[in-house]
Amino acid sequence: MVDRAYALFEEQQQARGIDLNVVKEKLKSLKIETPSWGYGDSGTRFKVFQKEGVPRTPFEKFEDAAQVHAVTGLAPSVAIHIPWDKVEDYGKLRSHAESLGLSIGAVNPNLFQEDEYMLGSVTNADAKVRQKATAHLLECVDIAKETGSRDLSLWFADGTNYPGQGHIRQRKTWMLESLTTMYQAMTPEMRMLIEYKCFEPAFYHTDIADWGMAYNLAQKLGPQAEVLVDTGHHLQGANIEHIVAYLLDEKRLGGFHFNSRKYADDDLIVGTVNPYELYLIFYQILDAARAQDAAIRQNVEQIAYMIDQSHNIEAKIPAMLRSVLNVQTQFAKALLINHEEVAEAANRNDVLAAEHAVRRPFEFDVTPLLVAIREEQGLPADPMQAYLNSSYGKNILVRGKGGASW
Amino acid sequence: MVDRAYALFEEQQQARGIDLNVVKEKLKSLKIETPSWGYGDSGTRFKVFQKEGVPRTPFEKFEDAAQVHAVTGLAPSVAIHIPWDKVEDYGKLRSHAESLGLSIGAVNPNLFQEDEYMLGSVTNADAKVRQKATAHLLECVDIAKETGSRDLSLWFADGTNYPGQGHIRQRKTWMLESLTTMYQAMTPEMRMLIEYKCFEPAFYHTDIADWGMAYNLAQKLGPQAEVLVDTGHHLQGANIEHIVAYLLDEKRLGGFHFNSRKYADDDLIVGTVNPYELYLIFYQILDAARAQDAAIRQNVEQIAYMIDQSHNIEAKIPAMLRSVLNVQTQFAKALLINHEEVAEAANRNDVLAAEHAVRRPFEFDVTPLLVAIREEQGLPADPMQAYLNSSYGKNILVRGKGGASW
Amino acid sequence: MVDRAYALFEEQQQARGIDLNVVKEKLKSLKIETPSWGYGDSGTRFKVFQKEGVPRTPFEKFEDAAQVHAVTGLAPSVAIHIPWDKVEDYGKLRSHAESLGLSIGAVNPNLFQEDEYMLGSVTNADAKVRQKATAHLLECVDIAKETGSRDLSLWFADGTNYPGQGHIRQRKTWMLESLTTMYQAMTPEMRMLIEYKCFEPAFYHTDIADWGMAYNLAQKLGPQAEVLVDTGHHLQGANIEHIVAYLLDEKRLGGFHFNSRKYADDDLIVGTVNPYELYLIFYQILDAARAQDAAIRQNVEQIAYMIDQSHNIEAKIPAMLRSVLNVQTQFAKALLINHEEVAEAANRNDVLAAEHAVRRPFEFDVTPLLVAIREEQGLPADPMQAYLNSSYGKNILVRGKGGASW
Amino acid sequence: MVDRAYALFEEQQQARGIDLNVVKEKLKSLKIETPSWGYGDSGTRFKVFQKEGVPRTPFEKFEDAAQVHAVTGLAPSVAIHIPWDKVEDYGKLRSHAESLGLSIGAVNPNLFQEDEYMLGSVTNADAKVRQKATAHLLECVDIAKETGSRDLSLWFADGTNYPGQGHIRQRKTWMLESLTTMYQAMTPEMRMLIEYKCFEPAFYHTDIADWGMAYNLAQKLGPQAEVLVDTGHHLQGANIEHIVAYLLDEKRLGGFHFNSRKYADDDLIVGTVNPYELYLIFYQILDAARAQDAAIRQNVEQIAYMIDQSHNIEAKIPAMLRSVLNVQTQFAKALLINHEEVAEAANRNDVLAAEHAVRRPFEFDVTPLLVAIREEQGLPADPMQAYLNSSYGKNILVRGKGGASW
Repeated sequence: MVDRAYALFEEQQQARGIDLNVVKEKLKSLKIETPSWGYGDSGTRFKVFQKEGVPRTPFEKFEDAAQVHAVTGLAPSVAIHIPWDKVEDYGKLRSHAESLGLSIGAVNPNLFQEDEYMLGSVTNADAKVRQKATAHLLECVDIAKETGSRDLSLWFADGTNYPGQGHIRQRKTWMLESLTTMYQAMTPEMRMLIEYKCFEPAFYHTDIADWGMAYNLAQKLGPQAEVLVDTGHHLQGANIEHIVAYLLDEKRLGGFHFNSRKYADDDLIVGTVNPYELYLIFYQILDAARAQDAAIRQNVEQIAYMIDQSHNIEAKIPAMLRSVLNVQTQFAKALLINHEEVAEAANRNDVLAAEHAVRRPFEFDVTPLLVAIREEQGLPADPMQAYLNSSYGKNILVRGKGGASW
Repeated sequence: MVDRAYALFEEQQQARGIDLNVVKEKLKSLKIETPSWGYGDSGTRFKVFQKEGVPRTPFEKFEDAAQVHAVTGLAPSVAIHIPWDKVEDYGKLRSHAESLGLSIGAVNPNLFQEDEYMLGSVTNADAKVRQKATAHLLECVDIAKETGSRDLSLWFADGTNYPGQGHIRQRKTWMLESLTTMYQAMTPEMRMLIEYKCFEPAFYHTDIADWGMAYNLAQKLGPQAEVLVDTGHHLQGANIEHIVAYLLDEKRLGGFHFNSRKYADDDLIVGTVNPYELYLIFYQILDAARAQDAAIRQNVEQIAYMIDQSHNIEAKIPAMLRSVLNVQTQFAKALLINHEEVAEAANRNDVLAAEHAVRRPFEFDVTPLLVAIREEQGLPADPMQAYLNSSYGKNILVRGKGGASW
Repeated sequence: MVDRAYALFEEQQQARGIDLNVVKEKLKSLKIETPSWGYGDSGTRFKVFQKEGVPRTPFEKFEDAAQVHAVTGLAPSVAIHIPWDKVEDYGKLRSHAESLGLSIGAVNPNLFQEDEYMLGSVTNADAKVRQKATAHLLECVDIAKETGSRDLSLWFADGTNYPGQGHIRQRKTWMLESLTTMYQAMTPEMRMLIEYKCFEPAFYHTDIADWGMAYNLAQKLGPQAEVLVDTGHHLQGANIEHIVAYLLDEKRLGGFHFNSRKYADDDLIVGTVNPYELYLIFYQILDAARAQDAAIRQNVEQIAYMIDQSHNIEAKIPAMLRSVLNVQTQFAKALLINHEEVAEAANRNDVLAAEHAVRRPFEFDVTPLLVAIREEQGLPADPMQAYLNSSYGKNILVRGKGGASW
Repeated sequence: MVDRAYALFEEQQQARGIDLNVVKEKLKSLKIETPSWGYGDSGTRFKVFQKEGVPRTPFEKFEDAAQVHAVTGLAPSVAIHIPWDKVEDYGKLRSHAESLGLSIGAVNPNLFQEDEYMLGSVTNADAKVRQKATAHLLECVDIAKETGSRDLSLWFADGTNYPGQGHIRQRKTWMLESLTTMYQAMTPEMRMLIEYKCFEPAFYHTDIADWGMAYNLAQKLGPQAEVLVDTGHHLQGANIEHIVAYLLDEKRLGGFHFNSRKYADDDLIVGTVNPYELYLIFYQILDAARAQDAAIRQNVEQIAYMIDQSHNIEAKIPAMLRSVLNVQTQFAKALLINHEEVAEAANRNDVLAAEHAVRRPFEFDVTPLLVAIREEQGLPADPMQAYLNSSYGKNILVRGKGGASW
């Protein structure tokens, strides 16, 4: 059945002018970074449920992550969070990762869990706190040197809960100061990815509240600073793919933190609330990959695709598997868009045909295609089932409860 | 200056046809319940900052609450949360409260912090979990008997994060079953207040998601079941005062959990984001207090005004003081509305005059009025300053960090 | 290729335990009502663009609607709007419809386009206006008798723009009074479908603002009153499928006005913004179709599926074709859900497996299935292409511009 | 009473360290531009209700606007919309305005009401349409020269309803091209104010969707391009005062279109939904007016305060009066903020005191202050009453219905 399915799929796509060899090549090049913290416990302010088998150390997190990569071939790097993943010897962590077939991905400073940061870290009115926060950023640059990480991924919880609590413009200046210091410490190969978020944990104003503020910072800092789009960090109704296209056109899209949301920053598994949105994001990216401007195309090449989710109730490793598979699925579908067909319809003002040309590939079942590339890559046809069939999930139960959490 | 201010205020209001004696009487009858948990530490999923001096026991929470009542005369009762406020001897807690001039208010069951409740409490697919949850509800009825509490205040975190995770209609049935059991255990003097919430901690569906679901439950349960409106539990744009008016017209408004929100369920201090909304809620209540239907007027009399906030970064006792004072302020302003003036303008289709008749009293500074009633009640003119001038805040620092939290 | 595709699809579904014969039968029974006004010009407050070829009379609207039904077999009835579709002789309109293979569907009163209704129709403070509005409702009952319509579909623009402009509780009473009068005039075969909307054109409060208010009205009126869910009439974040499941459990779901929205009541083509939401709605309906309670199953049978969109920039007939096809597609996908598989996963608390059991069928490409039933029904395999290949679209251009609009 | 009220108010403010002479001077310098179209009929897509007495010509609009200025002293300029206010001789219109004590304010091109613009004006895929649209922009520059207008106020309805309908990045380029052409035609005294809007009338993507896109355009164009903030053009939850502070810090805040919204772009009277938000906007502006950076202070000086509302159901002239008075009221309150008090509290991390320092002045009744400056300016103490007492409103009824609308 599998072979017939693929043959039929290929025939179908050929008829649409889609060359599956090209599609397959792009599919095989897709890399999605998983976050070390996604393997640990997380929750809401109401409760963090503890799961048995959750990794107890950064080393165990990499072991779990290796499982995701082993069956999917999609997740060769793992983002770390400092100090959650602080170790004495990063060389050792790096060797551990490499021994598992992984690399260490983005380094994420953490500036929201110490008492001093209650009213801000790099935007705190107290210069000592700002210095401490900036020192942590510099520490993370150093760690990135040791881990061989290209990206420093910055999210700030900084903001205020009430008018008057902090001085908005002053804080804006302090943010730039701190990031400038960090920027100057980076090696030429490094990138600073600046994340924005509309609210939470700050409930009045957030210092970097939207893409415009992150982008403006990046522009002031220099070419190694780019914007990081977390799909859950927008106000209701925001057109994320528009922002993505916009940033690509400005060559400032650093990467993604993928997850799903129905309400606020729900941090659900990517692709479970509105999979079409994820598909449309890839549509914009693939459109930009065809841009005449080489700099835009280069930006596309350097996008960091990363998962950032809270698996509050889900089994962690399967949740991560589902996440990278969902991204792969929507990416595969988007690769079937015939851009000429869209353009041709749009150019004759045929709104319905243009919309259909974009949406139709979303309706294709790409399973035959995914099975085919997995076979070609020596991967299991059904990665989730392969993982569940393994004994790994049971074996780690000996870790007990009370492992890593954030 | 104070006397001249009041004289002028009185003159001004008389000219508008407002009898300040009536206003004062109503103002003096305002009672706002504060929640025991509002005196403890709280936070977001990112961090719970610990404050020095936070109460370590339910008894200390009442001592803090007594401070709020002592300087405002507004907060004579305190809601408790079980098991956060579980004590061996509720009679002793009640005596303690009474010795402080307080009574024990609504009893709040907690069905979201035990591992079994990860996938639901009264709507869990496992009958044993549902029984355990229902048993806790019955325990709370028993506690309410001991504490002399009229109200059982129910909020359920129950819901799902993903389609398919739970069966929506079955869970609806289970919810009704459990509440029916609880309802039947209540004494005739008790009321069941059913709270609703659009989301969080559940991110796909919440079993009691909006006022309509809470109201429908209340109708099925009987006359002692009413709806509890938490001002932070609505989707963006919801007209809360419309819901309030609607529930009053149906004689099913049990009470409020007051707080402010700009984004989601931010649980900020009431009256700090859009104070006009709070005023408009009181406008609807005071309008209903003039209804011809005696049952509506009776509903108004029995509304439980309660604070429900998370003081993540604020000093707890001052935060609570500010909260009850903000409620008092908006209530005082709403008492200055001349309902005949509104009706007269509306009846001649003068939209602008009607709007102005509602909004104008919001612009009055009611400080002279509040100072006057405080003086008449033997309370400090400036309750916040009176508290800050006292040594209480410093004395409790000996409690250290690590007190109660949720 | 078509045959092989179907064979493969059938094999695949059989392996999942899905009997395609059952699926096909249900698919063939799907009926979607299109609205007469969807064939005319519409727009935003900024501009109504006029299209050539738009129907000039109710008779021409039915002719256009017949095209949609002819190629899809999905749209045998057409909703009418009074007075937009007012004719001297409804028997003649009915005959015209029947001669085209159509029937007249829901009758929609219009109570928002006359000057008297500026401040409300059935909730206007002026008794004469309320009487006029109620008389129009009664007129529509009479029309429904002539047209043989089962459903009276009620949407009220009534509401206020400012606090004080109208008396919320009084208006609530007037609404019930008017609907009671109408209800009593209905024949036992008729149904009153009560629509709700959160806002627009009223921007402060809307008299029937949410499902809870519509449902409460229906309960007071009697068993022939049900709730009409317009998918674009909710606040951001509302879980529509939850509301659908809830109403089915209460046996009060009258039907749908399908359309898509990204922001407010955008009235875009159904299935173009978040097709997964439409699928999840059908999931709840199909789940209810399996309920033990026969009354719930009967409610499912009587759901009126209707399109309600504004084709501001689209070609009207193709837009309607796309709409009914999108509904059919998602319905077809939802029919592939294996409910036992979902239940089994949910019962063993496997959140991820349950979610996947619901979502996986959404990924299937149902084209082979749809082509198969079209062939069996003697319909074109590609209805859109069939219509575009016909000369109808060109022929109606003689109508010129300036046809029907709302 | 008036004198005593002012004396008391002055005493009160002096005690707070507020110098009323400074406050009065700033209050007297407040100028709010009213829009010509705000005197005409407007509505929703459902209905434009026609009012008697609505101006029939641009000249009559200025006559109505003169009434607003005559009684308030606040509204000396009037924005015009081309072609709604197209006249043969702009010199004549200007003379007419001046004879009424008015000047012609911002010139607003209209690029959304011609058939060619259905799929975009300056971002249309058709070069001829783009050229026509750009020509209109140039025409408006010419008109501004004739009218002596400093500001060109640009709002584009351009956007798409469906993915694929238009090419997002190409349209971005075309937008910049067109604005560059316009920018180069402007005299050195002119300013281009670029407005953004999240949605409506476009329901998928809007070419200038948020402040970041408008700001980025302004940066590319040059120092005469600035951002225009319409208070109703944001997604729910957006912190508008944060955006205002941000733009001031970047010296790119061109001005405001004031109005209120509860849901979408409701265009209600400013200050009627959340007056505190308007106050907080002025708080940020007044804070920036104290900035060390002279360029920021200069930006504050040049902010254009403009009304942009749809008076769908209100009497037009009184609606405009209410609007400018509401702005004046909140500006007056914000002038009472003691910025040192806020800073002092914030600097000692007293969140509650800082919040209170910002919010407390909002509670003052500024009527005595406003009456005082009106008296000093020779204006009626109650401008609304003065207007209503005049015969103007009755006299214009001879204009009948069917006047200007948009």
